[in-house]
Amino acid sequence: MLSASAETAGVSTVMTEQTFRDIEPGLVLPVGLSARVRVPASSANLGPGFDCLGIALGIYDELIVETTAGGVEVEVTGEGAEDVPRDETHLVARAIVRGLATAGAAAPGLKLRCINAIPHSRGLGSSAAAAVSGLAAASGLLVEAGVRGPFDDAELVQLSSEFEGHPDNAAASVLGSAVVTWTESGAVNGGDRDTADRYSARRLVVHPDITATVFVPDTESSTSFTRGLLPDEVPRSDAVFNVSRAALAVVALTADPAALCAATEDRLHQDYRAEAMVPTLELVRALRARGYAATVSGAGPTVLVLGAGQVSAEARELAVGLGFVPATAAIAGGVEVTHGRV
Amino acid sequence: MLSASAETAGVSTVMTEQTFRDIEPGLVLPVGLSARVRVPASSANLGPGFDCLGIALGIYDELIVETTAGGVEVEVTGEGAEDVPRDETHLVARAIVRGLATAGAAAPGLKLRCINAIPHSRGLGSSAAAAVSGLAAASGLLVEAGVRGPFDDAELVQLSSEFEGHPDNAAASVLGSAVVTWTESGAVNGGDRDTADRYSARRLVVHPDITATVFVPDTESSTSFTRGLLPDEVPRSDAVFNVSRAALAVVALTADPAALCAATEDRLHQDYRAEAMVPTLELVRALRARGYAATVSGAGPTVLVLGAGQVSAEARELAVGLGFVPATAAIAGGVEVTHGRV
Repeated sequence: MLSASAETAGVSTVMTEQTFRDIEPGLVLPVGLSARVRVPASSANLGPGFDCLGIALGIYDELIVETTAGGVEVEVTGEGAEDVPRDETHLVARAIVRGLATAGAAAPGLKLRCINAIPHSRGLGSSAAAAVSGLAAASGLLVEAGVRGPFDDAELVQLSSEFEGHPDNAAASVLGSAVVTWTESGAVNGGDRDTADRYSARRLVVHPDITATVFVPDTESSTSFTRGLLPDEVPRSDAVFNVSRAALAVVALTADPAALCAATEDRLHQDYRAEAMVPTLELVRALRARGYAATVSGAGPTVLVLGAGQVSAEARELAVGLGFVPATAAIAGGVEVTHGRV
Repeated sequence: MLSASAETAGVSTVMTEQTFRDIEPGLVLPVGLSARVRVPASSANLGPGFDCLGIALGIYDELIVETTAGGVEVEVTGEGAEDVPRDETHLVARAIVRGLATAGAAAPGLKLRCINAIPHSRGLGSSAAAAVSGLAAASGLLVEAGVRGPFDDAELVQLSSEFEGHPDNAAASVLGSAVVTWTESGAVNGGDRDTADRYSARRLVVHPDITATVFVPDTESSTSFTRGLLPDEVPRSDAVFNVSRAALAVVALTADPAALCAATEDRLHQDYRAEAMVPTLELVRALRARGYAATVSGAGPTVLVLGAGQVSAEARELAVGLGFVPATAAIAGGVEVTHGRV
């Protein structure tokens, strides 16, 4: 199969399902394939939509990957440059390996260049974006090698959600715009998303008046820690409250920006996590008191404001006083990938 | 003020807010005003959207009301003809009185003709429809008397929700189509919707392929009884599950009928109420196993199916065998009111 793939050099051949299944495990990609990916940041939850609503933000990580003769080499510029591993444990490298493996393929070696703008551990979906970029890169490499056609959106959502665990972020980075995600699990086991096996998403057409402002603090947050602050049982009235606001959020995002404040109210997660990010909740409350649809971005500590207008200078100054850096972010499109030969 | 109003006989005068507030309490409407109302049935919850999603169904109650010199006379044809009171305790009569009272007005007497097609106590929103029809009739009478302009949609949603307690049904009957409703309450008090004071709703544009089928049993259900079966606390994972499905429901209803099955899954109310309506849950499960987006309609025992296609003969026969009468229902428009003089 490898020689057959190599013969199609430079051509994006879509192989049939039958052909794809015929590929023997252990297919090794040729050296010199390359893929380039641009992936947006994302903000999850949007208030009521815990683990199911996400929006893509115009802050991008870029990835350039090449197949090499051996080893894993990682070059990182920008966010995370001082922290992330430079070997095969790098999240993007692992996602590429995972993506190739879905087609029974592997690379003899990989060289990664990461140009990162998405802040790490701030609730802006950097891990999900890394997973999406690696998987999209794998898709590009597989196409370039003629192994198969590109992963479609559903495959990318499934693979990246499986790999990284946050379908709301991952689907936003894959599809762009705002997304609703849901998980279908064979067994409940009193469990959470982690027991589930099938991830789906739908892209919303966001009302053109809506813009996003993020308020990014200098402090980091751990999603796994803040998730531990959530109770296993919640009042039914709070569940019902969030159900109504999440439904309204879809209406507000697509058709009725004036309803965004009501549509971003939450009783299921933000207040439970308040102790882990006091300034974040303080800023959310101060902004909401001023009429802004402010929410904790993902597991925090970044604050997201969605709305049809700009955030006032007074409110921005207030945020700066609390240690946050305000930035306007466009509602972004989904992941983009190109591929070729070095 | 009465003479001023009477001078505008036959003309729908919209009085200013200032003028409206100037009306002294105790304004008595003239004899011989009439209003005619047509109000649709509704199905609430739609699976995940407990107390917040509703859809108007093309089964209509009609009401003709006249102001008379004294007393309350009620004539009922069709559903409820053998059960409902025939005096001022009749739900529609009380809603008319409530509606008139919002403008400081009252009728010396009322004559009601009710032609009812919405089954009672079946989960098809007959009480909410009665409240909406009475309030809409009051609006017509007030306009005909020149007291004020008609209640707008927001007023009708607020008044009918306050009066009857189910904003999801009431808003569907007011606005038609499908609706998302939410409640803003000054105080939570561990309470439910009943502690709340401000009801809002948004109308969805339902995808034109979607039709409704209702399966109405011969048995009745009490919403207050079945509500008592719901626990005060629910697993967070179930809350999160319903949040995602309710958001998806808005997408499915407006843009993606193929997602209706996933979008109508519920973990917050249907199973808890199963003991109160065993055949209903049996039918819901049998229909869902066949790929239909079946849910308990409101508090039951009617079953609602939403979908882009017809329900098969086999499935209809199965429902009949369980004691249900299947009927196709159009997605309805909202309440209609006309007014005049006898």
